Amino acid sequence: MKLIRCGAPGAEFPGVELKDGTRIDVSAFGSDYDERFFENNGISNLRMWLEKHQNECPIISEHVRLAPPVKKPSKLICIGLNYARHAEESGATVPDEPVIFFKATSAIVGPNDDLIIPKNSEKTDWEVELGIVIGKKASYVSKDEAMDHVAGYVLHNDYSEREFQLERAGQWVKGKSCDTFAPLGPYVVTKDEIENPHNLNLWLKLNGEIKQQSNTSDMVFDVPTVISYLSQFMSLIPGDIISTGTPFGVGMGLKPQRYVKPGDEIELGIEGLGTSKQTARAWEERN
Amino acid sequence: MKLIRCGAPGAEFPGVELKDGTRIDVSAFGSDYDERFFENNGISNLRMWLEKHQNECPIISEHVRLAPPVKKPSKLICIGLNYARHAEESGATVPDEPVIFFKATSAIVGPNDDLIIPKNSEKTDWEVELGIVIGKKASYVSKDEAMDHVAGYVLHNDYSEREFQLERAGQWVKGKSCDTFAPLGPYVVTKDEIENPHNLNLWLKLNGEIKQQSNTSDMVFDVPTVISYLSQFMSLIPGDIISTGTPFGVGMGLKPQRYVKPGDEIELGIEGLGTSKQTARAWEERN
Repeated sequence: MKLIRCGAPGAEFPGVELKDGTRIDVSAFGSDYDERFFENNGISNLRMWLEKHQNECPIISEHVRLAPPVKKPSKLICIGLNYARHAEESGATVPDEPVIFFKATSAIVGPNDDLIIPKNSEKTDWEVELGIVIGKKASYVSKDEAMDHVAGYVLHNDYSEREFQLERAGQWVKGKSCDTFAPLGPYVVTKDEIENPHNLNLWLKLNGEIKQQSNTSDMVFDVPTVISYLSQFMSLIPGDIISTGTPFGVGMGLKPQRYVKPGDEIELGIEGLGTSKQTARAWEERN
Repeated sequence: MKLIRCGAPGAEFPGVELKDGTRIDVSAFGSDYDERFFENNGISNLRMWLEKHQNECPIISEHVRLAPPVKKPSKLICIGLNYARHAEESGATVPDEPVIFFKATSAIVGPNDDLIIPKNSEKTDWEVELGIVIGKKASYVSKDEAMDHVAGYVLHNDYSEREFQLERAGQWVKGKSCDTFAPLGPYVVTKDEIENPHNLNLWLKLNGEIKQQSNTSDMVFDVPTVISYLSQFMSLIPGDIISTGTPFGVGMGLKPQRYVKPGDEIELGIEGLGTSKQTARAWEERN
């Protein structure tokens, strides 16, 4: 099942994208896709509800904005340097254990919303990533148990301001948390539809030209490892998103370096998880 | 006004602590202390509501658990090394600009809840801190405007696992986000009750012995500077908590170093913001 959320910011409602691409409004199910939904078997309850009610659900026009497909996750956790060639282009070595950082959840936007380049930013960069959506609270879980805590997967562009991240005092979070820096979606694909999360092609294009192209098989720490590891340091809450790191090909690694400019179009995708596309705007041009 | 929340985890309700220490249940006001409350002038609306209804509010027994006084903040942001002598005891220099890190909001607990020492932790440490509660969205605000975005203040113990924070790969968040690592409260004191947030004594005792004792006048970056600075990198959302750093006297800085052991009692306070007390338990002894 493909969970979508639609509507203007602040007026989003839950929907489902059917196999033929039709989007239906499931507001009548009575629950948005938030912590409570995932915690209370929302996915299987919605599936049962749809068996009876799918034909009554209004069709959503393709002109309606796609919103982030999870409502207000408590955390957006990222794994750094989780593809060997990306670690290399970043001038770093592959870490012995996962590197963790957070993005502010206030950075989350819909998959095709504009990217707003922050004021005073000259080094806004892209990062296509596979996101994991947590379905069940995870605290000190083993690798063997980890997959039981996954609800599904989501496409994420982990935008990063490299000067804020790396050249200002302190921690990476400063360059990861700007508004619009976390387009999520188009949809959460439930776990049952992804046979193997470790064999998915992923790619990103800048103005139509391929910049990142890899496969999740190149991850250093795989999905169960990442979940088990994180759960030793914090509880993972239903609806939390874990972004599993980006492959080779970010702007910082190019020679010469190439960062996002107003007017750029950034398009990205992961096999089975759909595509998203952001247009970059200067802060002064934002709506 | 002093905003409290009471009740068992998952069944919390809003209250107010009156000048004489009586705690009253304000569930009938109809809004818990969350993003929406702060965003929609909740504090002044509650004050007006109390003028008519205070006498009808049930009194809360002192035996009822105090919960974290803000419901599900979107972010818990911390400022690192913001007191000069603490930077020194940490082996660091005072930064040129604020150092930012996040704690997971899943670490937030009530002010007097037990501290659960994480599995495999040998370096769990304390940090008394002044927390700012955001009352109005802040994005690119100046220092002059910053105080308009403050709802109030709250006492915070920024527990930190030093090995997880400093000796494991990557970013500090790993040692800051364990469950129970962010006792908040006893209450949010509204801004009008704190004449000057930069002249408050703050202290922390371990088993009755003073370990930290300082004054917020020793902060390197003051409250308006911190808010203005953060708002250049991310939007601050109503209900977000900013913890402004800890003074000298953490366990890591002592000779010999002294970390929290099961059975330890940690008590802390800030002038005007009340006190809190946590008892440390081993993970295996948790309830």
